[in-house]
Amino acid sequence: MQTAEQRVRNYIKENRIRGTRLLQKMVQEPSTRGEESGAQAVIIEKCRELGLEMDIWEIGSDGLVDHPAFCSDRKDFRGNPNAVGIMRGTGGGKSMILNGHIDVVPAGDPKDWDRDPFSGHIECGKLYGRGSTDMKGGNASLLMAIEAIKNSGIRLKGNVIFQSVIEEESGGAGSLAAVLRGYKADAAIIPEPTNMKLFPKQQGSMWFRISVKGKGAHGGTRYEGVNAIEKAILVIDRLRHLERERNERITDPFFRSIPIPIPINIGKIQAGDWPSSVPDLAIIEGRMGVAPNETQEEAKREMAEALSNLCNIDPWLKVYKPELQWFGASWLPGDLDPDHQLIKVLSESYKDVKGKEPLIEASPWATDGGILSKVGGIPVVVFGPGVTETAHQANEYIRLEDVFEAAEIIALTLLEWCEVSE
Amino acid sequence: MQTAEQRVRNYIKENRIRGTRLLQKMVQEPSTRGEESGAQAVIIEKCRELGLEMDIWEIGSDGLVDHPAFCSDRKDFRGNPNAVGIMRGTGGGKSMILNGHIDVVPAGDPKDWDRDPFSGHIECGKLYGRGSTDMKGGNASLLMAIEAIKNSGIRLKGNVIFQSVIEEESGGAGSLAAVLRGYKADAAIIPEPTNMKLFPKQQGSMWFRISVKGKGAHGGTRYEGVNAIEKAILVIDRLRHLERERNERITDPFFRSIPIPIPINIGKIQAGDWPSSVPDLAIIEGRMGVAPNETQEEAKREMAEALSNLCNIDPWLKVYKPELQWFGASWLPGDLDPDHQLIKVLSESYKDVKGKEPLIEASPWATDGGILSKVGGIPVVVFGPGVTETAHQANEYIRLEDVFEAAEIIALTLLEWCEVSE
Repeated sequence: MQTAEQRVRNYIKENRIRGTRLLQKMVQEPSTRGEESGAQAVIIEKCRELGLEMDIWEIGSDGLVDHPAFCSDRKDFRGNPNAVGIMRGTGGGKSMILNGHIDVVPAGDPKDWDRDPFSGHIECGKLYGRGSTDMKGGNASLLMAIEAIKNSGIRLKGNVIFQSVIEEESGGAGSLAAVLRGYKADAAIIPEPTNMKLFPKQQGSMWFRISVKGKGAHGGTRYEGVNAIEKAILVIDRLRHLERERNERITDPFFRSIPIPIPINIGKIQAGDWPSSVPDLAIIEGRMGVAPNETQEEAKREMAEALSNLCNIDPWLKVYKPELQWFGASWLPGDLDPDHQLIKVLSESYKDVKGKEPLIEASPWATDGGILSKVGGIPVVVFGPGVTETAHQANEYIRLEDVFEAAEIIALTLLEWCEVSE
Repeated sequence: MQTAEQRVRNYIKENRIRGTRLLQKMVQEPSTRGEESGAQAVIIEKCRELGLEMDIWEIGSDGLVDHPAFCSDRKDFRGNPNAVGIMRGTGGGKSMILNGHIDVVPAGDPKDWDRDPFSGHIECGKLYGRGSTDMKGGNASLLMAIEAIKNSGIRLKGNVIFQSVIEEESGGAGSLAAVLRGYKADAAIIPEPTNMKLFPKQQGSMWFRISVKGKGAHGGTRYEGVNAIEKAILVIDRLRHLERERNERITDPFFRSIPIPIPINIGKIQAGDWPSSVPDLAIIEGRMGVAPNETQEEAKREMAEALSNLCNIDPWLKVYKPELQWFGASWLPGDLDPDHQLIKVLSESYKDVKGKEPLIEASPWATDGGILSKVGGIPVVVFGPGVTETAHQANEYIRLEDVFEAAEIIALTLLEWCEVSE
């Protein structure tokens, strides 16, 4: 007679092809922002097959848009629901939220990809496509873990609440909606692409937009104008300087191996509409990292000060001050005590499967963990199979072996955390 | 009994309100690229009123698109015709082309304007609006000059060919079409905004596009990517350096008072599509000035070399070389001998009206003069009432006094050049 642990691990090993097919179907549905419904349909179909109690709703009610942590410029959430599937426990055990986002960032220039960005192509044990690593692979691990427990005939005492949410890449409105709908648990795992590391702490982040004025002129007499692009370059230089200052202060050992713990990313620039004109406006957009132990407000104040200092040394910017806006997305940082029971249970499961200690670090990016912990009051760990360095880039892939191992580790964690019902 | 000169000058003085209304109507028709028909209708109505022989045609035939000097990315010229109006001479005199473009550059950010960009508002002797200076004011001077001669009952020996062309701001396809349709003359005046200076020489120019590759990554681990914006900044620095090198070589005294005789304008930059991603592509667009005494090919070669030198010092750019394209617009430089009879006649007319010698310089920007002279073989001078430094910028305006004086100067030039028929 096999133990519950052996049964779920064997189930996952024997059903790798099923798991792979599920992931491939998810990746082949391009769930960029506003187009999440196709991939959600794949998830919902799977949850129904597993007999989970379903809750599918279009977000926007329950006071969502008026909540202080709501941060989205999306006007319409219709047709692209959140989906929650509950594996109801027999009672008495601790509950667990398994949270993954279904939205993916745009594919970028398709020419940079060796194949169609949504191919789901498999080669040498890797599955390719936008969203494979961030984070449909992690979602597949969650569903395989639930399936393994369910189809091995095991009942748990505590509830397992699987959440497939939208809007993570744009500020977490999907997870916030789930919290406001009343979903709570004794812990949560978010399988974002951590390269199988455990992240009890997560960097927060916020999107900024800086508008830099110039003075238009004919390009042939460009000296009569002021090029907004040249002034924007000064702003970018200053942001690089600020990034260095902020990162020199980070002493948390969890960030030891991260080259830039809280980066300031310049994600976008747009200026000018005519090659022969001097552009009179440049717009920079980017993402500012927030340390686990600082508030978003402190970080915002530092950026405003840095721009103000720049204005003091450039005569043009002194008069035409760059305009700083915080818009679109914003993720709260996460800061779980590394000695929390959740970390211990997950670490043990990791050791059982991998035969070695896990790496425990701080995440170099924000996740919905900030919302679940700071708004929902839920202890959160981020741990998943994806390959961090391929997230958001061309030829994104995930190693299938990691997806299966993460499924085993999460399944074992559920058995321990929620307890097996005799 | 008044001389012909006195009669046309008095006519213009007495009909300033008519001229102002004409210009206002022209400015109030926003003739940005692809939307030229409304302003052309105002011109055509005026030409018909003056009894000119009209030739109105949609450009694109006569071998236009296959001509080596054709340079346009516009696919469709339908509905926005060129218009030519001929005041036929009695025979025996020299002919004159009066050429003006009807297209205007985009208005830019409307918030930078004190009023609607196409208001035609008049205040303190200035008429405001996109295109007022570049170059509807000059066109108004041409039409006032023709009207003054016609309505003063004067007949000229030589033909006067008035051309209202499209596409000047995008590379001169309108003027090229007029040349290819067979319009020739013994001289041409183009009343671009020269601040009432005479420009026998004109800077040529060409549009370029430089695509700079980066490597995408999640903004939270931006050190795993290569930001295309940072690489684009290196390219912009190199272009500034090239601009300095090229301008240090300019010794032509006609360029003496021009801070940057042949500028390289950075008109546009676009990179990235997501604040949280490291952008993998930046596209720079701009305009490169060409000296009157160099060929476009020589200038193109220099830019290619400058980029190639940059690639030699940056390891990333050495592998991912920026891609240089010449696209859209291209204007040939103009290089008329300052002792040409056209300059002498125009200078005399200038002295009659202004009571002083004109300033004769090289133009800091390209005009359709390059096409009329290099393709059409027509001696060209650029001279007009517009205020150079307001062209292509917010709150563009023209001084109405200059419009009227330019009309007088051009009318006197026509009387002398084409000769009054007894």
